[in-house]
Amino acid sequence: MSKYESLKSHCKKIKNLEHAKNMLYWDGAVFMPKGGQEARTDALSELECLIKDYKTSPDIISFIEDAKKEKLNEWQVKNLKIVEKEYTRQIVIPNKLTKELSRATSTCEFKWQEYRKENNFKALIPYLQKVFELSKEEAQIISDEEKSNPYDVLLDKFQPGNSQKRIDELFKPLKKELPNLINIAIEKQKETKPLDGDYPIEIQKTFGEEIIQNLGLDFNHARLDVSHHPFCGGVPTDVRITTRYKDGDFTQAFMGIVHETGHACYEQNLPADYLYEPVGSASGIAVHEGQSLFFEMQIARSLEFWKFYSSKVHDTFFKYAKTFDLLAWSPENIYRHFIKVEKSKIRVEADELTYPLHVIMRYEIEKELFSGNINISDLPNIWNEKMLEYLGISTLGDDKDGCMQDVHWPGGGFGYFPVYTQGAMIAAQVKNKMKEELNFDQEIRNGNFLSIKNWLKKNIWSKGALYDMDELLKNATGEKLSGQYLLKHLKERYVGI
Amino acid sequence: MSKYESLKSHCKKIKNLEHAKNMLYWDGAVFMPKGGQEARTDALSELECLIKDYKTSPDIISFIEDAKKEKLNEWQVKNLKIVEKEYTRQIVIPNKLTKELSRATSTCEFKWQEYRKENNFKALIPYLQKVFELSKEEAQIISDEEKSNPYDVLLDKFQPGNSQKRIDELFKPLKKELPNLINIAIEKQKETKPLDGDYPIEIQKTFGEEIIQNLGLDFNHARLDVSHHPFCGGVPTDVRITTRYKDGDFTQAFMGIVHETGHACYEQNLPADYLYEPVGSASGIAVHEGQSLFFEMQIARSLEFWKFYSSKVHDTFFKYAKTFDLLAWSPENIYRHFIKVEKSKIRVEADELTYPLHVIMRYEIEKELFSGNINISDLPNIWNEKMLEYLGISTLGDDKDGCMQDVHWPGGGFGYFPVYTQGAMIAAQVKNKMKEELNFDQEIRNGNFLSIKNWLKKNIWSKGALYDMDELLKNATGEKLSGQYLLKHLKERYVGI
Repeated sequence: MSKYESLKSHCKKIKNLEHAKNMLYWDGAVFMPKGGQEARTDALSELECLIKDYKTSPDIISFIEDAKKEKLNEWQVKNLKIVEKEYTRQIVIPNKLTKELSRATSTCEFKWQEYRKENNFKALIPYLQKVFELSKEEAQIISDEEKSNPYDVLLDKFQPGNSQKRIDELFKPLKKELPNLINIAIEKQKETKPLDGDYPIEIQKTFGEEIIQNLGLDFNHARLDVSHHPFCGGVPTDVRITTRYKDGDFTQAFMGIVHETGHACYEQNLPADYLYEPVGSASGIAVHEGQSLFFEMQIARSLEFWKFYSSKVHDTFFKYAKTFDLLAWSPENIYRHFIKVEKSKIRVEADELTYPLHVIMRYEIEKELFSGNINISDLPNIWNEKMLEYLGISTLGDDKDGCMQDVHWPGGGFGYFPVYTQGAMIAAQVKNKMKEELNFDQEIRNGNFLSIKNWLKKNIWSKGALYDMDELLKNATGEKLSGQYLLKHLKERYVGI
Repeated sequence: MSKYESLKSHCKKIKNLEHAKNMLYWDGAVFMPKGGQEARTDALSELECLIKDYKTSPDIISFIEDAKKEKLNEWQVKNLKIVEKEYTRQIVIPNKLTKELSRATSTCEFKWQEYRKENNFKALIPYLQKVFELSKEEAQIISDEEKSNPYDVLLDKFQPGNSQKRIDELFKPLKKELPNLINIAIEKQKETKPLDGDYPIEIQKTFGEEIIQNLGLDFNHARLDVSHHPFCGGVPTDVRITTRYKDGDFTQAFMGIVHETGHACYEQNLPADYLYEPVGSASGIAVHEGQSLFFEMQIARSLEFWKFYSSKVHDTFFKYAKTFDLLAWSPENIYRHFIKVEKSKIRVEADELTYPLHVIMRYEIEKELFSGNINISDLPNIWNEKMLEYLGISTLGDDKDGCMQDVHWPGGGFGYFPVYTQGAMIAAQVKNKMKEELNFDQEIRNGNFLSIKNWLKKNIWSKGALYDMDELLKNATGEKLSGQYLLKHLKERYVGI
């Protein structure tokens, strides 16, 4: 066996443990009874530690050094780089810290569920404080090695190449232009005819399964379930997506499903030959979000899509609706439901246009936290200030829908938020390019997603982690990630310029 | 930290990995999409190997030797014995064999599902052959060490203390008396009024959840789902039970649920202080089956139970029934449905009286297989011969419902079958004792299961693996396992003597 083969077989062991971890995580969010939490936390923490042991096994370095002397293709070369970077980052972290952080996030996520219901931020503080301190400590150790800074390490963890400098540059025009755009859009938007009804969950589920299949996900390798927050988990050959249903509104669950289907299609179309090596994974979370937001924003929230799909929606849901006004089911009216702009407190319910501001304020708060300018206990106040500044909404006394609304911080996901808006940028940039090469609008109006899917498969999905975000986009669209296409798209869609 | 504490923390790591393994297994049977099989097989095999690594870690022996010198209670002493026995058995098995066996069983189980549908035993032979050979090879290595024989090693694996000698002794009277008893019972049994209907699965599920809670299982630490074969999985603080539903018949799913609830109650009431040590696990599979069969045979298939429960069944299901004959819903008629005796091909559908013959014939076939008198390819013929001899039924040309009906052999579970009938014996012996100490029939007629549950908790469940089967029964009932109480029970119930 060549040294590269030895490394590959070592990588596969790690993937096997990650399989277990991903499935236990999915089960914890979807099916686990409440009383199973403690044992689950222990099991997940054990797996985390084992994965770390494997990633920092003394064999790795000798495998890598020897493999470098072998004849390798570009995938294998990139794989060595990823494995080495992961090794270098993990080897400096004491096992005790890994274990503490794993337990702290798991406990804090659990407490968050409880205290968020009670709107009790004060009770959450010690748990969140611990997660923050341990996360920072871990990032600090790595940044000392790499001569960077802790928050940059965390940003780079979710999307390799990310840094405050790069994100500041991407977010600056958005931050400047969005508040004004939002006001114009709200002023200009036309009233929608209500689509209220009493839509049975089972019917919504079947309808969701149909769009999933139309979009090309293979249910032989996927499932659709329900969880408190929609997500995409599992492994490439067994992807698990979730949504949540409301009796009175079919639009939310539907759009949640479309979004997660974007993630799931990426996973299902990763390069089969490298599925058990890190290079066969997704390029990063921003690119991942780019796929889900492409499906959601560029396909399913477009007028063209509803010209195709409104009749299906009508045929399925009309009999459960509270309105008999047939105009409510016109493509234009349904479309307007999906592009309604409203300043609101909750990020996951925010519309496409206000969403980036939710992200930008979180990013700015994280920068302040990591620079030491504010503490965890300051979160309610700074949250309120930023919400007032960007969206004119106060969250004072409503931490439940303020700084406690997201699971990211309790889960230790500091540095994650920017990828959402980078994802929107990727989706817009990809759509812009696709329009040059395909009959994009026409295909969507015909409900023919195959050429679009093939484009994504060829240019993005099948590339795995071979390229970092900017290189991937340059190959696919001719230039590295730029914020201009998102702004262009938002202007076209929301203010008609 | 004392050496015992070090060992304990090592044991907890193993339990954590077993947690992952159990949940992945459960998911594979309940929710996994078909295309997830390959990656799941790899992940389970990885976990198996890791568990084996942990069980044979070089630390173990020094922990044990040093811990023996410390002041230990009887639980800890027994724990050392269990860990040492497991170490001694596993350390002699080459890792390559463990991995091969794990993959072979996983593949064979999958192939079995496919080929059973096609009634194609011939196609299954190479896979089953491989599982058998590897299982035998593993058992042979251990038996060489222990100066026993391979089949005894396998019997002992599922219920410590089991051997061919002991099982022959227990099964002999049953084998002699049952065929005659069955004929008398069939002749004597009264006709039942049909309970056919169109019973919605959702209603059956809710009804099942109610009996589960009546019987005392805590849903905060348990779930009920659907799988092809009912089973009980998960971990003590998060037990997963399954059943399967038929539209036209509520009795099967109901009894499946009651049976698995017995298993689940045992798991939920294992000694909390020792939950992460092997001594805190169940005493063995026969004792486990004793609990599920106690719930099923001694509680829910009794006339007393139906005197309590028939009105609930009527209130829930009458409106969906195809019969308007109220007498069909009498305690006596429902009871007769549950004790109907019929010679049939399928073990899992067999009644209480014919069931032991299904077990005995499988046990006899396994003995022949392991002694080398027959081969895997002989299974269809010997199966047919035994079925003709014991139950007068031919399975020639119908391997699907003959030697391919059970997952045990494809899954490598040679030596497992006897525990079903030992379980029935345990349940009967325990009921016999309980009748001396409690107002047993009265409690069941009143639907008051608390005193019964407390008895089981005190005498069996809370003892974990502190005692082997015979010692446990001696403490609980005054004598080691005996077949006479099962025969007595069967005679009373089925031929009225």
